[in-house]
Amino acid sequence: MTNDTTRREALIGIGAAAGLALLPQAACAQPARKIGYAIVGLGNYATNQIMPAFANCKDARITALVSGTPEKLAKYGAQYGVPDKNRYSYATFDRIADNPDVDVVYVILPVAMHPEYSIRASRAGKHVMCEKPMAPTSRECEAMIAAAAKAGRKLMIGYRSRFQPHNVAAIDLCRTKAIGDLRMIRTAHGFPIQPNQWRLDRKMSGGGSMMDIGIYSLQAARYLAGAEPVEVTAVESTDRRDPRFATVEDRVDFTLRFPSGLLASCISSYNSNHNEYRAIGSEGWVELEPATAYRGQAMRVRKGGETSTPNIDTSGPDQFAGQLDHFARCVRDNRMPIVPGEEGLRDIRIIEAIYRSMREKRAVSLA
Amino acid sequence: MTNDTTRREALIGIGAAAGLALLPQAACAQPARKIGYAIVGLGNYATNQIMPAFANCKDARITALVSGTPEKLAKYGAQYGVPDKNRYSYATFDRIADNPDVDVVYVILPVAMHPEYSIRASRAGKHVMCEKPMAPTSRECEAMIAAAAKAGRKLMIGYRSRFQPHNVAAIDLCRTKAIGDLRMIRTAHGFPIQPNQWRLDRKMSGGGSMMDIGIYSLQAARYLAGAEPVEVTAVESTDRRDPRFATVEDRVDFTLRFPSGLLASCISSYNSNHNEYRAIGSEGWVELEPATAYRGQAMRVRKGGETSTPNIDTSGPDQFAGQLDHFARCVRDNRMPIVPGEEGLRDIRIIEAIYRSMREKRAVSLA
Repeated sequence: MTNDTTRREALIGIGAAAGLALLPQAACAQPARKIGYAIVGLGNYATNQIMPAFANCKDARITALVSGTPEKLAKYGAQYGVPDKNRYSYATFDRIADNPDVDVVYVILPVAMHPEYSIRASRAGKHVMCEKPMAPTSRECEAMIAAAAKAGRKLMIGYRSRFQPHNVAAIDLCRTKAIGDLRMIRTAHGFPIQPNQWRLDRKMSGGGSMMDIGIYSLQAARYLAGAEPVEVTAVESTDRRDPRFATVEDRVDFTLRFPSGLLASCISSYNSNHNEYRAIGSEGWVELEPATAYRGQAMRVRKGGETSTPNIDTSGPDQFAGQLDHFARCVRDNRMPIVPGEEGLRDIRIIEAIYRSMREKRAVSLA
Repeated sequence: MTNDTTRREALIGIGAAAGLALLPQAACAQPARKIGYAIVGLGNYATNQIMPAFANCKDARITALVSGTPEKLAKYGAQYGVPDKNRYSYATFDRIADNPDVDVVYVILPVAMHPEYSIRASRAGKHVMCEKPMAPTSRECEAMIAAAAKAGRKLMIGYRSRFQPHNVAAIDLCRTKAIGDLRMIRTAHGFPIQPNQWRLDRKMSGGGSMMDIGIYSLQAARYLAGAEPVEVTAVESTDRRDPRFATVEDRVDFTLRFPSGLLASCISSYNSNHNEYRAIGSEGWVELEPATAYRGQAMRVRKGGETSTPNIDTSGPDQFAGQLDHFARCVRDNRMPIVPGEEGLRDIRIIEAIYRSMREKRAVSLA
């Protein structure tokens, strides 16, 4: 509990003492309980990016941990004040159904485990946040959506960039036609991947660079375009002699065609560093580089023959806290998250079409 | 005749007076006569870029002009000191065969006219420089090459970027592996085209943005890779309601696959401004923006975590003079130009495969 919340709750207490509790408004004024998150999977991303972000959340807090490693449960349980009774192994995970401290289960596991733990969490009556890519196949995405719907619970995919201020500003510039009519989108995401990790095992990852980092190019193209692609053409290049790429793809070039005729030229790579996009309009362009990194985003805007570097207000919550708070408020207010399971499914369907296009060496219709 | 040449010829005169003319070396020491160019077509590119560049040439000079417009012949004839007898119309063009002042015919006409004037010039016994794209079809390129070969004369295509210092430096950085092994090439060329010009009439141009400006992306990919592509995958987007694009394509995205597995992601556009490339290696990258403009080239190199902007020596002849002098020396020394007709043919064959790929919506093999 933050000092701020304590102070607000104390003030409410004073209000109640003054007899205001009899008024219906008083119920509204009462500060909402922070939504409790169970973190499933205590790997790098969970422990270094997501869990520290709760310190900046207004509406979300960590209330439970799930891990197959007792040492991690002990370490992070102590660090985040999660009591013994709220620490779970994968064997005891389903008992989370009986834990009122947990509202949301956040699945941060290797991709192949997303469907199982997302569905088990829905069946336990919990809302689910699941990391991207949502699942190895669209069929599994559909099962995850169906399980959440059957349980009457929400499902959100961890598309943090949608809560990142520079990305929000870039989307706004495209949507308000500040750079004129959108003519072209170019985006590239990649990094030289280290060997010996689950991302390079197709059974665990569902695919290579496209699933892991290329999905940022795909998402960016879609959120900048503000439309759904109708056709994809993809070209793969993978050195199968490289032991890293025994089961997954390295490089993918893919072009998305949108209904307006707009093309997005996208790159995904496990062999070179890229983190950028540029949306080019009839009157200028907006560029982010880095675009979707954990931090350090920078924007350039070209308009009227001048290139400027606008100052984006980053004094609010960062993308990680923004994402956690957004879903907390959706749960509390019974609203649909801006990136629900259906959004994760859309990306996976397009990635399946990209894989088909690069396999069959032809354009694949998404209509 | 430049002062420099006058001075050198004066010195030779002194040598001859001293009896050196009897020695065989004296013939070698005698300054070569500048190679005489006939400029065919007095449009924007010829009059604003090529013709002024002769002032910076050591080995080339304008000796004849060919135009269908008598006013242009009078104006530029006077400006460049080309006598009446060396001014031709298209009707009198073939008489150039009898003019010893003309060594090279430089064809700077709408693309559809390249084959006819290139072949007529070869038949007139002249060496031919021809603007890019070489011709509307590979069949016509082959006829142009055959005509030059039959006449025992040279044929060069006006790929000026190969003589531009920043481009030469970028090629060198790729070839010497200064940025490690080449992992990726990205290039984009485009501009919003003005309506009502021959470039927008397929009968005159042979095609749209791909022939006119996309060819720079294609050339750059090939000269940076230092290899020939084995497969191309292309996607077109053209708004056929736009009167500019009634007969030619606007936007083309194309990916070239090279034998090493290297992919080049290329863009061609008649609707937005692009003039750039980046070659990405295992240890860094080299970028030019603008890359292939008439002037103003700028280079950035990324290596060892640092981005630098190397100073390229541009004190020598610019790309226009460099190209003109190169062919002049090839003619004089009976050497093959670095960008002969065969090089123009290669681009046109690849462009034909790009057109086929975008029409059939599938990858096209070039092997």
